[in-house]
Amino acid sequence: MAGFEPRDADWEARVRASFARQPFMEYLGAVIAHLAPGEVDLDMPHARALTQQHGYFHAGSTASIADSAAGYAALSLYPAGTGVLTSEYKINLLNPARGEKLVARGRVVKPGRTLTICRSDVYGLEAGRETHVATGLFSLVCLPGLAD
Amino acid sequence: MAGFEPRDADWEARVRASFARQPFMEYLGAVIAHLAPGEVDLDMPHARALTQQHGYFHAGSTASIADSAAGYAALSLYPAGTGVLTSEYKINLLNPARGEKLVARGRVVKPGRTLTICRSDVYGLEAGRETHVATGLFSLVCLPGLAD
Amino acid sequence: MAGFEPRDADWEARVRASFARQPFMEYLGAVIAHLAPGEVDLDMPHARALTQQHGYFHAGSTASIADSAAGYAALSLYPAGTGVLTSEYKINLLNPARGEKLVARGRVVKPGRTLTICRSDVYGLEAGRETHVATGLFSLVCLPGLAD
Amino acid sequence: MAGFEPRDADWEARVRASFARQPFMEYLGAVIAHLAPGEVDLDMPHARALTQQHGYFHAGSTASIADSAAGYAALSLYPAGTGVLTSEYKINLLNPARGEKLVARGRVVKPGRTLTICRSDVYGLEAGRETHVATGLFSLVCLPGLAD
Repeated sequence: MAGFEPRDADWEARVRASFARQPFMEYLGAVIAHLAPGEVDLDMPHARALTQQHGYFHAGSTASIADSAAGYAALSLYPAGTGVLTSEYKINLLNPARGEKLVARGRVVKPGRTLTICRSDVYGLEAGRETHVATGLFSLVCLPGLAD
Repeated sequence: MAGFEPRDADWEARVRASFARQPFMEYLGAVIAHLAPGEVDLDMPHARALTQQHGYFHAGSTASIADSAAGYAALSLYPAGTGVLTSEYKINLLNPARGEKLVARGRVVKPGRTLTICRSDVYGLEAGRETHVATGLFSLVCLPGLAD
Repeated sequence: MAGFEPRDADWEARVRASFARQPFMEYLGAVIAHLAPGEVDLDMPHARALTQQHGYFHAGSTASIADSAAGYAALSLYPAGTGVLTSEYKINLLNPARGEKLVARGRVVKPGRTLTICRSDVYGLEAGRETHVATGLFSLVCLPGLAD
Repeated sequence: MAGFEPRDADWEARVRASFARQPFMEYLGAVIAHLAPGEVDLDMPHARALTQQHGYFHAGSTASIADSAAGYAALSLYPAGTGVLTSEYKINLLNPARGEKLVARGRVVKPGRTLTICRSDVYGLEAGRETHVATGLFSLVCLPGLAD
């Protein structure tokens, strides 16, 4: 899971620019907290709008940042002139998703020409303590000719 | 997948009340479009805030209504005095999620005392035509003593 | 899920020949019970060798025929000169897998040039009654230049 | 993922005895290669009977040992007088599964009273080199009153 070599010298600017064009991430209040080849962390501060009926972050908002973290981890290794789409994912919700913020850590497990497989783990941060909130596996497609 | 018998006479009011207490569903603009024992459809009209960088509904917003539709389909069969939590799910994104709105159709596949398994399919509606956008499988936990 | 058009006139012979070359399916005693474009059913008679510690079919043998049924459902729609590989799958085990035999019904949900998505449902047959044992979603890759 | 405390003093003997009662694992030639609280490795030597049409280990045999490794990792933490059943799993096949043997490494991610979540990674060993063949997430149910 380490030592990935980006195929696009401009990978970092490309990831940041694409993320900035995702209205949904802005709507959720998610921001990039860490960026390296094959690695993206996203932070999402707590907001009532993101919760479910018991006051925890909704599985949907939790999985949304897990998915974007995985997708941008994949995109960071894609060649220039290609785009990323999520083909499928699976997520296990391990603990109630609470805290001042969630952080999703997307990591490339296996880069590929067409399919890149990532894992993404979500943690809740509360009073300086991390709780493992969710873990998932994601398949990302590399689409030639799709500006990202 | 048919003929489920609710265990709580008040199931419909309970599902509607719980859904109304999910701030995230309100934030996404999702509404209940169909409700029957073991069956919930949710509609989510298109809004720019729900999209990703290519203008389609984000995988995260798409999966969020798939998850809530599955969760409330499960809750519709739970006994009184219990709540629902998503344990895990898997979703395949089949086609670009576009249209004037998405509809997620959650259906109980196998009810259980502790775990209820649902499928949920999401369709994009565009000019009167439906496109199959996503299909997923969901495990929902029944939690005694958790008011929902 | 209906009306798929095979792209290889010789699809049926190709599926049967490839299945006959899967030593693992022979080892499990699985046979093709139904074959149509985008549809494959596999039967696997009960044998003690296929069970787990409580006497039911093992999750592994159950999932193995679900996977092969999905894979051959996909292959039935592939163009000539291509092969099939499973990229990923997810399976929910719904009921104890018992009976005189299991039948796995693989069905194409969404055919694609690179990725084909299938569902596969497994049923246990006992004294003329069917029990829904498992349901799963499968991503199959189409590999050009891989004789199948 | 470390430092789990077994709840049954006799956990090791119980895991070994249950594994020995799985006819399917014996049929596949799988053996326990490592055992610790929350950790089980299974080895499966290559045999033609375990392969698919291209000569690689079949996704089904690969996933079968991934599942058993996860299941016994979970069981190692269960209290006495309970049994384990797989509720669901998802697996991504990362590379062709070849080698003299496969090893599946099941690890508990989150133990629970009812549901235990594990990951399981499968590696192919060929001429002293390991290839990451598969990665999966598994939900295991703890069943009271089911001798295992």
